[in-house]
Amino acid sequence: MANLERLQPRWLLPIRPSATLLIDHDLIHQNGQIIDILPRETANQDYPLATCLPLPGKVLMPGLVNCHGHAAMTLLRGYADDYKLMTWLNDYIWPVEAKVVSPEFVEAGAWLAATEMIQSGTTCAADSYFFPESTVEGFAKVGVRSQITTPILNFPSAWADSERHHLDKSLNFFEWAVGRPNLTTGFAPHAPYTVSDGGFEQILRYSNDLDLIIHLHLHESKEEITLHEAEHGNRPIARLRALGLINSRLQAVHMTDLTEVEINQLAAAKVRIAHCPESNLKLASGICPTQTLLKSGVIVGLGTDGAASNNDLDMFQELRAAAMLAKVTSGDPTALDAFSALEMATIGGAEFLGLSDLIGSLEPGKAADMIAVDLSDIRHQPVYHPISQLAYTATGQDVTHTWVAGQLLYAERQHNSSDVTALTAEVARWQAKIQGMS
Amino acid sequence: MANLERLQPRWLLPIRPSATLLIDHDLIHQNGQIIDILPRETANQDYPLATCLPLPGKVLMPGLVNCHGHAAMTLLRGYADDYKLMTWLNDYIWPVEAKVVSPEFVEAGAWLAATEMIQSGTTCAADSYFFPESTVEGFAKVGVRSQITTPILNFPSAWADSERHHLDKSLNFFEWAVGRPNLTTGFAPHAPYTVSDGGFEQILRYSNDLDLIIHLHLHESKEEITLHEAEHGNRPIARLRALGLINSRLQAVHMTDLTEVEINQLAAAKVRIAHCPESNLKLASGICPTQTLLKSGVIVGLGTDGAASNNDLDMFQELRAAAMLAKVTSGDPTALDAFSALEMATIGGAEFLGLSDLIGSLEPGKAADMIAVDLSDIRHQPVYHPISQLAYTATGQDVTHTWVAGQLLYAERQHNSSDVTALTAEVARWQAKIQGMS
Repeated sequence: MANLERLQPRWLLPIRPSATLLIDHDLIHQNGQIIDILPRETANQDYPLATCLPLPGKVLMPGLVNCHGHAAMTLLRGYADDYKLMTWLNDYIWPVEAKVVSPEFVEAGAWLAATEMIQSGTTCAADSYFFPESTVEGFAKVGVRSQITTPILNFPSAWADSERHHLDKSLNFFEWAVGRPNLTTGFAPHAPYTVSDGGFEQILRYSNDLDLIIHLHLHESKEEITLHEAEHGNRPIARLRALGLINSRLQAVHMTDLTEVEINQLAAAKVRIAHCPESNLKLASGICPTQTLLKSGVIVGLGTDGAASNNDLDMFQELRAAAMLAKVTSGDPTALDAFSALEMATIGGAEFLGLSDLIGSLEPGKAADMIAVDLSDIRHQPVYHPISQLAYTATGQDVTHTWVAGQLLYAERQHNSSDVTALTAEVARWQAKIQGMS
Repeated sequence: MANLERLQPRWLLPIRPSATLLIDHDLIHQNGQIIDILPRETANQDYPLATCLPLPGKVLMPGLVNCHGHAAMTLLRGYADDYKLMTWLNDYIWPVEAKVVSPEFVEAGAWLAATEMIQSGTTCAADSYFFPESTVEGFAKVGVRSQITTPILNFPSAWADSERHHLDKSLNFFEWAVGRPNLTTGFAPHAPYTVSDGGFEQILRYSNDLDLIIHLHLHESKEEITLHEAEHGNRPIARLRALGLINSRLQAVHMTDLTEVEINQLAAAKVRIAHCPESNLKLASGICPTQTLLKSGVIVGLGTDGAASNNDLDMFQELRAAAMLAKVTSGDPTALDAFSALEMATIGGAEFLGLSDLIGSLEPGKAADMIAVDLSDIRHQPVYHPISQLAYTATGQDVTHTWVAGQLLYAERQHNSSDVTALTAEVARWQAKIQGMS
């Protein structure tokens, strides 16, 4: 019975079965997997030798899944706020990136992001950035599960010289990544306006051959679509359809501007969508029509986007924003209710990543990716409906424990794997360097 | 030099002068008032006998001002979420209120709300609810500054039998309140659809005679306006203008649906507006056009509304929502920038309440209503621009110290005045009672 642990929360929210909330039930896990979920009374008899961890006043639930981010950019958190998108990119983000982006920068930023994610309840993150090996190394210092996709652009970046070079470096990365734990990979062509038709065709071919997903910023704002129409004579989704990209391997990010026809096309092709509500609000990009998409059967996950445009990685705040925006845009306060918002941040994210057999709910046989959320503070009282409380009052700061694959990475608000003192010094060094440049 | 205290934060954000951020400056306060703000070096010489309180890694700023709430309803936090407004009111909120609203309920709820407000950085709150004396008593257990307005309805409530009875009880309350510390009062006619023309006329007369403000839910949703047009043949603002209510004593709450003509009328009359972004989103009421209002010179403060429709009293989350919504509704990411959002939650709120000579900024002669916000956690790193960080990453949970009129009510995340253990037991008693009823 070595390694067998019995968690004893006040409430257990497994997400599957849907909307179930268990009181005084225990979860048993061993070797990274969930073994059993059963009433506390029965657990006393069935697992007498398991180590017990009482979690009074807390909800045990699946870890949150962040479907879109650029972890390294956490080092640019708050560096340039309240600018128009093109000013933000041209005058701030791209110039500073041109000066600092390096394997060391990426590893430090990923370490910082992963530390924040683990302490705010995110156990799995999708990420796209240059030097993806360094993101993997940074994440490994903390232990977050991830999908790392490689950027492809039709102009030089800090990482590669040409579209083809980005592709070749991507293929190298996929080989390097084989066998590394808690990691999946794929392509991240940047956007329709930064990738050529030829580039998309090559990516599609490799995607089919290697069974790899394609993670793409798409229909982020009205301006993007207007510019695309001027250049290509059609909307980005129409061009991608003609190229064969609108398929079930596509992860489309943002999607703030969609017609009814496009929504039906996306649903039919089983395209998966990542909704990044706070980043879309802050950059004034628009609002993804999540309620309509969900009704059409489209898989929708939630993402924070990078901390340079959000400015935190708190998925609880993101899921609350998603719920509130769905209500106001549909004019219906029943839209995206509390449970649906939590679903979108857990099993929805797992489906988006193609990992729903492994994560996104607490069920025997699934990975033990879990969090405990404390509802005992006075700001949560009274607790009539814990599901409501998680969606509408909880923040990442209420998370007290986080496990990935059964490893307790964060316990009683202390990190077990990330060395926060060393990280703080490392981040201060990057801040000084970046401030010294401007 | 008794009672003279010297606060030594890393950063000091006085709000006035505008957008100023002071580094390594001290604030001196005594007998409830701010005495001086000066460089740390000079403070060593000028105030050698003051008691020093170092606040490393923290921002010292004015306490936040919550311009609209119903504190007692905090006891109904999460009681009924994700319902249509009329289902929420008719099937949940009003039936439970009919059963439990009493002086004891109101005092307990106000105690709970004030405790949450003080620990999340709110030092002054506007409140409207039945049994206002009990709200005052509940707030006094914690020490929050407040504006308490008395509900007026043209039908019986738990508090009074008729419109006239509500008015008479209001007048009694104003007398009772005279001389109580940190308290202002006024009328809170509920809404255009629940107060008669005669009622508004009487309120206007008393408001003029007694120099009292009028706090009113107004243009909360499109439905309200449609119903008003059907009944009265005009929009609520038009009716109130005819009655003389559109004047500088009016505090108009919500205001999600406004024409350009109405905005000009409000600006000309110096009507003050309370924007409650999260409650408006959650109930799908709409979005107040803050950016247009501010440009027209209208005073706009921020409110959480009651915790039964929000579901927390965290003004940091509210000001972030306000900033993000202003950006996406105007299509301009420079709209309501970080400092403007903080302004709206501090000096804007003080102007809304008519208290800007007393609170809303840190200036010598003003009341020492202050908070310290910790930016040292890894989730805030790096800190390029503390003003951005406060608006876009801080939550109420980052507040470590809160003073009202120089009294340190909350220190190192511990309450000095509110007895949280006793409060938790009291809230649990109310929760059990309310759950037993349904």
